[in-house]
Amino acid sequence: MSVLVVGSVAFDTVRTPFGHKEKILGGSATYFSYSCSFFSRVNLVAVVGEDFPSEYRELLMERDINLDGLQVRDGKTFHWGGSYHYDMNEAETEFTDLNVFEDFHPELPYHYRSSEYVLLANIDPDLQLEVLDQIDNPRLVVGDTMNLWIELKKDVVEDVIRKLDILIVNDAEARQLTSEVSLKKAADQLLGLGCKYVVIKKGEHGALLFSRDYIFSAPGLPLETVVDPTGAGDTFAGGFMGYLARSGDLTPEVLRRAMIYGSVMASFNVEDFSLERLKKLQKDDIKTRFQEFKALTNF
Amino acid sequence: MSVLVVGSVAFDTVRTPFGHKEKILGGSATYFSYSCSFFSRVNLVAVVGEDFPSEYRELLMERDINLDGLQVRDGKTFHWGGSYHYDMNEAETEFTDLNVFEDFHPELPYHYRSSEYVLLANIDPDLQLEVLDQIDNPRLVVGDTMNLWIELKKDVVEDVIRKLDILIVNDAEARQLTSEVSLKKAADQLLGLGCKYVVIKKGEHGALLFSRDYIFSAPGLPLETVVDPTGAGDTFAGGFMGYLARSGDLTPEVLRRAMIYGSVMASFNVEDFSLERLKKLQKDDIKTRFQEFKALTNF
Repeated sequence: MSVLVVGSVAFDTVRTPFGHKEKILGGSATYFSYSCSFFSRVNLVAVVGEDFPSEYRELLMERDINLDGLQVRDGKTFHWGGSYHYDMNEAETEFTDLNVFEDFHPELPYHYRSSEYVLLANIDPDLQLEVLDQIDNPRLVVGDTMNLWIELKKDVVEDVIRKLDILIVNDAEARQLTSEVSLKKAADQLLGLGCKYVVIKKGEHGALLFSRDYIFSAPGLPLETVVDPTGAGDTFAGGFMGYLARSGDLTPEVLRRAMIYGSVMASFNVEDFSLERLKKLQKDDIKTRFQEFKALTNF
Repeated sequence: MSVLVVGSVAFDTVRTPFGHKEKILGGSATYFSYSCSFFSRVNLVAVVGEDFPSEYRELLMERDINLDGLQVRDGKTFHWGGSYHYDMNEAETEFTDLNVFEDFHPELPYHYRSSEYVLLANIDPDLQLEVLDQIDNPRLVVGDTMNLWIELKKDVVEDVIRKLDILIVNDAEARQLTSEVSLKKAADQLLGLGCKYVVIKKGEHGALLFSRDYIFSAPGLPLETVVDPTGAGDTFAGGFMGYLARSGDLTPEVLRRAMIYGSVMASFNVEDFSLERLKKLQKDDIKTRFQEFKALTNF
């Protein structure tokens, strides 16, 4: 079962306590699809400029990620610059050059329109709605958002949430969306909007899945070294959604395991810059780390 | 098997978004022993002033907590004032009136000296060493500390850690003690000092147990309402240590369950001010919540 993702493909310039990297491959759709590709086929929709290097394109294609929906426009590729300090939990944005992303309108190639699994990565909620208008009859729609859209277009963000099966946000976004400190209350309010599940990511502290009937807590794996947390959330979503699509099911057991596969993929991603760690990843590494998560929480 | 605790018995004046309470019963030894009493007998060592009300004393005695080691001195009881704001994760201290606690030297009644389970709550590390000098042959020594002592007397804190079987600290204290951001690296460094286990509490995000051979992650239970987080760490330690003493064992299975019992007790404690929630607690409530923790993490 293949997964459609709409989001950004970008250059990142990142400074962390472990180094400084210029124009490395980044973007929500990039991290999502690379991670997802270990579980399911991916159809990607995004935009890049003429300056987007063919080696980055090949990197994605090597993982069988379908790039028919990757538009190439006159101009430069979206470029984000940010830095992380001591605690590595929050990026400080240094610049955001939207470039060709500024006028982006997602266009789904005809053969993408029957996609059953859809991931709306963090883009303008109006564009997220445009995507949904182009899809015939999705089986599962999962969406992300960010503080900027909650601030500028909260109503539209809420419209999107009503159309989602699963909302994935981080703890700060959940609180900002609902004005509730308690993540339990925040999740209940978001479920009240109409989505079926809410996933709240908590960085190094793991992630929570809320349904109307149960809560599941995926732990954060205590890591020796976090080199670069950029893309961890999208990498989580990739493992989560990829496993759901591969399973073709939404039982509590499948959803719980999907939360762990998401956490497994994110735990690898933060160990190096860009896709460097994921590029070296073997299927057995995923299995081994899944077992580490089991040992970490079993009692 | 009874547990010896040395720490503070105090008045707390607390302001949270849910109310303002004057001179309610608080203190590390209070929270610890009340929580521990659901699992094991407790022998308490602390000091209060002549103003300490008999109803507070009776509250502890009703739970079979032995107060032979509770000194009563001329003067006033230790009084702490603090407030919590929006995120409830950190208290802002408004005043600390040490009063009789200022000249406190723990004196163990003769029949306490053969205690096998010892909890050194957060007091001056020099006093923690004085306690250990008065104990014959403890089977398990667990200790806590705080930022103030790490700042003022780091060497003495490290001397104490060398004598502990289990160190319990929060994430900020672990980082302050070791200058490591990674909790894994911090724990390894603390284990390197000589203690056998390190527990790192992370507030609403749960707690981690580190040994040389494995890591265990206890989740935080997502609660609708956190009324007052004061004493949560000591309440955790009470459930943790009480269960260990009752089990008489330190297998990984017992330690993992002890982490969950600690978390169970702390999750009740934050639901009301002072001991209000714990006062109403039934053994079945503990069992039920233990099962909730199981459902929360099982995959």
